[in-house]
Amino acid sequence: MLRTHTCGELRMADVNKEVTLCGWMQRSRDLGGMTFIDLRDRYGLTQLVFNMEVNKSLCEEARKLGREFVIKIKGVVTERSNKNAKMPTGDIEINVSSLEILNESKTPPFTIEENTDGGDDLRMKYRYLDVRRSTVKDALLLRATIAGLTRNYLNEQGFIEIETPVLIKSTPEGARDFVVPSRMNPGEFYALPQSPQTFKQLLMVAGMDKYYQIVKCFRDEDLRADRQPEFTQIDCEMSFVEQEDVLQTFEGLITHLFKKVKGIAVSGIPRMTYAEAMEHYGNDKPDIRFEMKLTNMNSLVKGKNFKVFDDAETVLGICAKGCAEYTRKQLDELTEWVKRPQLGATGLIYARVNADGSVKSSVDKFYNPEDLKQWAELLHAAPGDLILLLAGGDALIRKAMSELRLEMGERLGYRGKDDFKALWVLDFPLLEWADDTKRWHAMHHPFTSPKPEDISMLKTDPGKVRANAYDLVINGVEIGGGSIRIHNNELQQQMFETLGFSKEDAQAQFGFLMNAFEYGAPPHGGVAFGFDRLCSLFGGSDSIRDYIAFPKNNAGRDVMINTPSNISEEQLNELSIQVVSTAPKSRN
Amino acid sequence: MLRTHTCGELRMADVNKEVTLCGWMQRSRDLGGMTFIDLRDRYGLTQLVFNMEVNKSLCEEARKLGREFVIKIKGVVTERSNKNAKMPTGDIEINVSSLEILNESKTPPFTIEENTDGGDDLRMKYRYLDVRRSTVKDALLLRATIAGLTRNYLNEQGFIEIETPVLIKSTPEGARDFVVPSRMNPGEFYALPQSPQTFKQLLMVAGMDKYYQIVKCFRDEDLRADRQPEFTQIDCEMSFVEQEDVLQTFEGLITHLFKKVKGIAVSGIPRMTYAEAMEHYGNDKPDIRFEMKLTNMNSLVKGKNFKVFDDAETVLGICAKGCAEYTRKQLDELTEWVKRPQLGATGLIYARVNADGSVKSSVDKFYNPEDLKQWAELLHAAPGDLILLLAGGDALIRKAMSELRLEMGERLGYRGKDDFKALWVLDFPLLEWADDTKRWHAMHHPFTSPKPEDISMLKTDPGKVRANAYDLVINGVEIGGGSIRIHNNELQQQMFETLGFSKEDAQAQFGFLMNAFEYGAPPHGGVAFGFDRLCSLFGGSDSIRDYIAFPKNNAGRDVMINTPSNISEEQLNELSIQVVSTAPKSRN
Repeated sequence: MLRTHTCGELRMADVNKEVTLCGWMQRSRDLGGMTFIDLRDRYGLTQLVFNMEVNKSLCEEARKLGREFVIKIKGVVTERSNKNAKMPTGDIEINVSSLEILNESKTPPFTIEENTDGGDDLRMKYRYLDVRRSTVKDALLLRATIAGLTRNYLNEQGFIEIETPVLIKSTPEGARDFVVPSRMNPGEFYALPQSPQTFKQLLMVAGMDKYYQIVKCFRDEDLRADRQPEFTQIDCEMSFVEQEDVLQTFEGLITHLFKKVKGIAVSGIPRMTYAEAMEHYGNDKPDIRFEMKLTNMNSLVKGKNFKVFDDAETVLGICAKGCAEYTRKQLDELTEWVKRPQLGATGLIYARVNADGSVKSSVDKFYNPEDLKQWAELLHAAPGDLILLLAGGDALIRKAMSELRLEMGERLGYRGKDDFKALWVLDFPLLEWADDTKRWHAMHHPFTSPKPEDISMLKTDPGKVRANAYDLVINGVEIGGGSIRIHNNELQQQMFETLGFSKEDAQAQFGFLMNAFEYGAPPHGGVAFGFDRLCSLFGGSDSIRDYIAFPKNNAGRDVMINTPSNISEEQLNELSIQVVSTAPKSRN
Repeated sequence: MLRTHTCGELRMADVNKEVTLCGWMQRSRDLGGMTFIDLRDRYGLTQLVFNMEVNKSLCEEARKLGREFVIKIKGVVTERSNKNAKMPTGDIEINVSSLEILNESKTPPFTIEENTDGGDDLRMKYRYLDVRRSTVKDALLLRATIAGLTRNYLNEQGFIEIETPVLIKSTPEGARDFVVPSRMNPGEFYALPQSPQTFKQLLMVAGMDKYYQIVKCFRDEDLRADRQPEFTQIDCEMSFVEQEDVLQTFEGLITHLFKKVKGIAVSGIPRMTYAEAMEHYGNDKPDIRFEMKLTNMNSLVKGKNFKVFDDAETVLGICAKGCAEYTRKQLDELTEWVKRPQLGATGLIYARVNADGSVKSSVDKFYNPEDLKQWAELLHAAPGDLILLLAGGDALIRKAMSELRLEMGERLGYRGKDDFKALWVLDFPLLEWADDTKRWHAMHHPFTSPKPEDISMLKTDPGKVRANAYDLVINGVEIGGGSIRIHNNELQQQMFETLGFSKEDAQAQFGFLMNAFEYGAPPHGGVAFGFDRLCSLFGGSDSIRDYIAFPKNNAGRDVMINTPSNISEEQLNELSIQVVSTAPKSRN
């Protein structure tokens, strides 16, 4: 090794030791006859001291070092006179006796500091410099820690890590596939997996009993903020289990992670049905760090000649604690906020609960003080609270009220990044109707098992059938989900029928799975967690990009290596494909 | 859980317990009034007993179970009268009181036994049944064990697991890339990584210090036996190291694996230069489980009017211990063996060392007894040994003799599967000349550092420059290798020049790496091990396929899911590509 120690490990106990360190020149200060340099590596910072009186030429050499030069120094560990309690190595410094420049550096295009002056694009282009910043470095270290803890837990539970293939088969169900032309099979393509779903089910058929994998998955979707074309999943499957077994096993994983990563003891993850979540939170991934439940006001507000409410399918209310003193300006701003096209509400009705218990609303001419008191009672609104109402079509207004609730929770400081509330959402509908295709679609995927007691409704009332499916939600973020799978071939075929697959289509696309199910498939179920998002949640960040070493931008590009890019005619010929101009392009 | 125990865990201590087991019906025997069933799961086999006298209808039900039916039984653990010492559960059996069929099974197309009657193609098509066989199941469990041990070791050494991207950029250097058309960037393509080489080097520039990943890599090559288009690597890189540090760190890993997996204590892995390996073994990955070194016989055999030897560039000899009694038929067969086109030798000369020390050769008319005694001395051949000589061009005959040596080692039982000999091969040439492209190519890759003392020869005698590169060889199989990398931008540019890259080409292909090197790249180096092969080696198998859950065949097909396959016109249009008939296809 070129060094004896790292830049993060020297302490008072090491004083008088002669050491060799390597690292990057973080910053340099000349103070009279002394030069101080902070030397940085992955493990920390160590202060180096050069003294003009002791060694003039060495000190002058040190003064010439630029930011991010890579150096190797020898010196003696010395107790600092000015200790720095903020640095783990802050009690000591190194009196340097020799200095070697291992590599020079151009001046970086942005500062390598926790709060950098570099914009997003610049940092992505020079990602190898961005990762030197402690923010990103710590995020990647946290990711590695969580991966390790996850593996330890699953290994101890008897799960076996098995790699499933990356070059698989394109299926039209689900999101859009990335495909890979096959040179050896001209005109044919592999697809990259959106998840190892079918393979993990085949592994259960194969008797592997408990499987896991931390695995890259791929989706060729138009990228919204914080979606990546390649992302990582913690993917698991178990045999001979019922829903309760899966919930308990992965409650164990999440508890383990909270304890080891955050030092937080989680005792039991609460559960809520999909129906409850939609009713009380307007949302299948409720943030339960705070209450502020959605309350249906129909029984109180209708029939009072207020046309907006009378005409509305649903009137929902929430109570914002202590917000009665919101000014007219604040309320107007909130009204504009709910009227944005993303939410689509037509307006916002509010009522303040005064100190004396009386209620003053924006619709006083339709409702008398007694009516308004009933509103307050239904919403458990106390003096000083603000009541907010939205009215309209049920689905739309529920979604809008969910957003308003989250916004108010944010403004009221209810959504602290160090407060973690996990939740299982259960009993999802098995199917959802799509108006564009005029058919039922699987809400999770076509292998999800209906609840046994609901199977009879598959033919009569498919929309009512509940699934043995579950999502894990933390702080209002869907971290993952799963289901008990169909292991019976007849039921699987019935499911495909309900989804409008012809026998031939089902056989062509999922034949291998249906065939496998004829050879003794065990009852099984599993989960998949979004690993990138789980890491960012534990790290207290909204951005998953910091937790990915080399992320892509919203156009799916890696601007550092400049990909995707053109390939040669020779490559295209070998692959038996040609690029064709797309219509919009040919017009340019 | 549907079960209280697995089929592998019940022992004498569990006698009288009521248990519930789930599993597959492995085999069934009716003996008079009793029916015995072996129930199988991942963890083992347990014997179930049904008794006609005790419960006739249950026993009759059990007699109807077909092979591979999935069942759930309840019963009491009982001591066996006929214990089976070969089974861990062989001391007990279960007196079954209830039986539930969880799923039926068609009769499998081959027997689910260690030695199956299923051929390769059939087993691949029904891989989910093949994996139920203990041979494949154990191979996959071993793979998971080795992955876990590898991660533990590297984590303890301070390596950080970091995922590098799968959608990267195509580069013409190296093997052929798989490519992925980008929908959002029409006409442009991603490539799948042949290795994370450049990314791990960028992580070193980024200061991550010690990186590892067990990672899928991809090569679109014509598949020889036991090559897979997607394969897995243990990929590692370290900063501030010299070659010796890397060797010691990964000697530690290999030692750890041998100890934990095989219970074998390895103390130190011997080292050999590339030059020595080629001289003594004719091969840069020598199997050192046995000696039988190649010996240059030129000084003894030339000038005796034997034209074959006189005309040959090189005459090589080996001594096969105790093979003097080989019959004429055996020797003729061996002669035909070396004359096969793969080896290309023109003939085989042999000499037997008799019990009295005299030597009898196939070329006695050219060599007198004294000459032949000198052969025996040079080769350390004792009475009873057989001397084998090949003559011809040095490179060809060295390769042929290497093969003959391995063949003789095999015949002599020197290559036992439970005997493991690891070896570092060092000091590889940096470059090799390619006659077809008429330029120097990097023997490892263009980022490999030359030995500092050889750098001056880069311009004058490139073929003589040795690299700071090393391979790990176990039992004659190249398990992995690596190098100290170039971290200096000028040297990297000089390397690209030597490889015949124009400045523009180098910038276009590796610009991001060369740019990164301008911002303080640390000295660094690393290794990559072929994980599939490592697993098969530890498992004592020649086939890596058993160690891959869902392998592809030699045409790159997964015959189970039938991929690659056609994709829809819509998908092609979205991706702005079209399939074009290849010339050979259009003639059909």
